[in-house]
Amino acid sequence: MSSYAIGVDLGGTNLRIAAVDQSGALRERVTLGTQVKLGRDRVIGDMCDGIRRVISKYQDAHLLGIGVGIPGIIDMSTGMLRESPNLPGWADYPVHAEIERQLGTRVILENDANSAALGENWLGAAREFDDMAMLTLGTGVGGGLVLGGRIWHGMNGMAGEFGHTVVDPEGVPCGCGSRGCVEQYASATAIVRMASEAIAGGSAPSLRRAANDDPEFSAKAVYELAIQGDAAAVEIFRRVGRALGIALTSLVNGLNLPIYVIGGGASSAWDAFAPAMFEELRQRSMVYAATAPRHAGDQSASDSGKTAITRALLGSDAGLFGAARLPMIAAGV
Amino acid sequence: MSSYAIGVDLGGTNLRIAAVDQSGALRERVTLGTQVKLGRDRVIGDMCDGIRRVISKYQDAHLLGIGVGIPGIIDMSTGMLRESPNLPGWADYPVHAEIERQLGTRVILENDANSAALGENWLGAAREFDDMAMLTLGTGVGGGLVLGGRIWHGMNGMAGEFGHTVVDPEGVPCGCGSRGCVEQYASATAIVRMASEAIAGGSAPSLRRAANDDPEFSAKAVYELAIQGDAAAVEIFRRVGRALGIALTSLVNGLNLPIYVIGGGASSAWDAFAPAMFEELRQRSMVYAATAPRHAGDQSASDSGKTAITRALLGSDAGLFGAARLPMIAAGV
Repeated sequence: MSSYAIGVDLGGTNLRIAAVDQSGALRERVTLGTQVKLGRDRVIGDMCDGIRRVISKYQDAHLLGIGVGIPGIIDMSTGMLRESPNLPGWADYPVHAEIERQLGTRVILENDANSAALGENWLGAAREFDDMAMLTLGTGVGGGLVLGGRIWHGMNGMAGEFGHTVVDPEGVPCGCGSRGCVEQYASATAIVRMASEAIAGGSAPSLRRAANDDPEFSAKAVYELAIQGDAAAVEIFRRVGRALGIALTSLVNGLNLPIYVIGGGASSAWDAFAPAMFEELRQRSMVYAATAPRHAGDQSASDSGKTAITRALLGSDAGLFGAARLPMIAAGV
Repeated sequence: MSSYAIGVDLGGTNLRIAAVDQSGALRERVTLGTQVKLGRDRVIGDMCDGIRRVISKYQDAHLLGIGVGIPGIIDMSTGMLRESPNLPGWADYPVHAEIERQLGTRVILENDANSAALGENWLGAAREFDDMAMLTLGTGVGGGLVLGGRIWHGMNGMAGEFGHTVVDPEGVPCGCGSRGCVEQYASATAIVRMASEAIAGGSAPSLRRAANDDPEFSAKAVYELAIQGDAAAVEIFRRVGRALGIALTSLVNGLNLPIYVIGGGASSAWDAFAPAMFEELRQRSMVYAATAPRHAGDQSASDSGKTAITRALLGSDAGLFGAARLPMIAAGV
């Protein structure tokens, strides 16, 4: 390995650090817990220690740079975190400057959903395309837009917040201040909330049993009931798919991209929500209707000129690879 | 004038042809009626005759090229019109090839709303910006996206259809096949429809009188009542503003552009709909809330890093100037 980059994915639970070479091969990976409760100084200290440890092993190779994906909206002009629900107390903290100070080198900070989009564009589901958008269905719904192989940041680095596309103007209140954002219907959090609502409504006996049996009742449990055909669970994923279809309609009509990638933990429930998503898209989006591949989800090269809506390929590594890609792009390699 | 371009704005009512120099100065303008009822061959023939007449007057100057803005979705790969409600019978006709055949020279065909966006970017409200989006409130709601000074076409030339951003998933059916598109609340057509609904509901005596007195009752008449304080008319423009605010929320959160321009005939009612639009945006869009200028609509240079939502400046000439700009961009001047 002659040259490599460090990618970091700083999540609310896991802190992952990797050394990745220019071909996209993962040379080393370190996974630490993110000690959010011990405060940001501890988390940043752990991260910088981990980065230094990895770098020390590759002293013969050329370090192209360090990219860090972080949950929250980053003001690119100041390097401040604007909002970061998963990192309480980090808002308005000069996280970028602090990391650079501790490491004594330039670091590229990026929103985690943007990093994931770049990772899928570099090595994943959208690797054959220059332009793509990604929705990451996790605790919230993150988004990233890649145009010409680069993250589209917009004016202040706040672009790509597709999770806050309005799908129901009078719908469920969202933490962002709006109502009816797609995040309120298609995130893992929303799936659990809709399950709780169904249980409270008294019409979801299987969901009730599953929730009672499992203290960590999750979107995955709802999905497992849905694939077994439980009506209440099926209906929840129909709502997930419908919300995604409405959000994608606005995106597809506005941007006419060749590919939209859906990732994040809750995208594992693809089989349960995709039929309603594609149905909604076909009915609503004239651009999709004019460009839909014969088989939904198909993005093979023979379908050029078609719109692919497809699952992510890199799983939870997308953000790690995307973060490592950032310094490579900056270095022009 | 050493060199110039021809811009054509082919509307459902007027066919306008202009000679524009590189500085954006309009050297000549010809306005003809669009004889839609006499068929597309007649309209294309009239247009080509008009273009030849203008060119013949400038034989000493260098013609950079010809740009034609046309209502409808153009498949850029084939030059076919996909949909064009204002030009019945033109769909799936090789309009691009036919114009080039008649003129014996290369012509750049563009969607009219994209041309208008480019015009406002070149010489109008967004002239200080590289990136901008435009909504054109006319018979429908057109949209155009300009990134890096060029129209963002997307994969097939269908991008920028912001008029079909979903603002109410169970709302008014739209000609595009969806429901609740912003076009159904913010176009001139929608304003007249909402007025008719209010009249039919029996709660709009002034609107009823205005409609009875005026066989060509229009959005302008509704606006005139609104600025006089008529409650039913005020409520209609509140709905216009609210729909625009919801659509802009999804756009601003997704793209984080420095400026969004609102043009088209119905944008003359700015005073009536803008307050509700800005109120909705401030409440709903976290990106707008973080970047709103102190004074709504302000886009002065001192407000760099702020999001401007502002009125178009070029009126009905935006599309004509934008069409003339197309061959200049292609020629790299």
